Amino acid sequence: MKTGRFITIEGGEGAGKTTLIDGLAKRISKLGRSVLITREPGGIPIAEDIRGVILDAGNTNMDARTEALLYAAARRQHLVEKVIPALNKGEIVICDRFIDSSLAYQGYARGIGMDAIWEINRFAVEETMPDLTLWMDVRPETGLARINKASSREINRLDLEGLVFHQKVQDGYRILQQRYPERIIRIDAEQPSELVLEQVFMELDQRFKGFFATDVKL
Amino acid sequence: MKTGRFITIEGGEGAGKTTLIDGLAKRISKLGRSVLITREPGGIPIAEDIRGVILDAGNTNMDARTEALLYAAARRQHLVEKVIPALNKGEIVICDRFIDSSLAYQGYARGIGMDAIWEINRFAVEETMPDLTLWMDVRPETGLARINKASSREINRLDLEGLVFHQKVQDGYRILQQRYPERIIRIDAEQPSELVLEQVFMELDQRFKGFFATDVKL
Repeated sequence: MKTGRFITIEGGEGAGKTTLIDGLAKRISKLGRSVLITREPGGIPIAEDIRGVILDAGNTNMDARTEALLYAAARRQHLVEKVIPALNKGEIVICDRFIDSSLAYQGYARGIGMDAIWEINRFAVEETMPDLTLWMDVRPETGLARINKASSREINRLDLEGLVFHQKVQDGYRILQQRYPERIIRIDAEQPSELVLEQVFMELDQRFKGFFATDVKL
Repeated sequence: MKTGRFITIEGGEGAGKTTLIDGLAKRISKLGRSVLITREPGGIPIAEDIRGVILDAGNTNMDARTEALLYAAARRQHLVEKVIPALNKGEIVICDRFIDSSLAYQGYARGIGMDAIWEINRFAVEETMPDLTLWMDVRPETGLARINKASSREINRLDLEGLVFHQKVQDGYRILQQRYPERIIRIDAEQPSELVLEQVFMELDQRFKGFFATDVKL
């Protein structure tokens, strides 16, 4: 039985997701709760193999629907092997990207359609939807400029597809936030990272009363 | 625009699909029509990579839904790169296993449910359903005995899952044939292969009048 909390972090490239996650993890672990920080494929060998197929630079003729099915497959395996067991142990799971990435990137920006992407992802996740999703909203110009400055971060195929694509991704997230206002909170990711962290922690505190502050069983 | 004909061959292990396909191909090509014989992953590098992940003996803890999504992904890429272009050129495409394998194996025998498997495969194939499916119906005992005799054929993970599983696969195909009687023809695959070929050719002749006998444009 799921007694933990499942939190996903979403947003375009360079939105500051990693910085936020690092900050969140430090704070939460100080409060004495067990936190699992993960991202697909998350060290799960099968999911790593699948992501290897997606990101292989030689696979330039990959159909958009093939790619979407592969993302859903990697998501499934990571969920079953890593996320669900942690939730069942009462842990807080923070996942860098999840279903909304597929909806925004494949569904909206690539034009497959959000409803179609939703169908295959519903198959993949079944009942395990996030309790809360933090959408790090940043303008594509800001995000890509941040990436180019961070020399330690490898530029991948998705980064190169240009501003038009990233603008669509942002539009996709906006639509999702309007569709699921209870689950998805918009965070202004143009702010300095310390302010982002404060805002996020305040939201978590309000949303999950007592869960983060103490070790009270829910 | 699709002017060809898409024929899929289905059935349990050892049903004689390969023998039928060889015989069919010889006959049809003698009639002066271009025939493409294929099977997933069909030499399509992306689809080969995906199948490699599925069949990797190290991946024993693969979740059934992960596997189903991977089959759908390989199907999609093979369809887009190989099957659809051939159909658009007016060719006859004969494919060894297609959507019904997923419905019978993953949907029914593994218990995921045919409706759920149908959803992800509808995403993968969109409008490109087979014009005709030949279900080679063989008792699991017969099929597995044939496989064990054929030493040149490698036994894979699926072969080892035993008779109970293969019985369920057969039941799954039976349900599909009852659900789609117009599309799926049952062939008694316990018969000698020459009789199977005769029956199949007769069915094709009736179904696609003139298409196999002459080079008439449809």
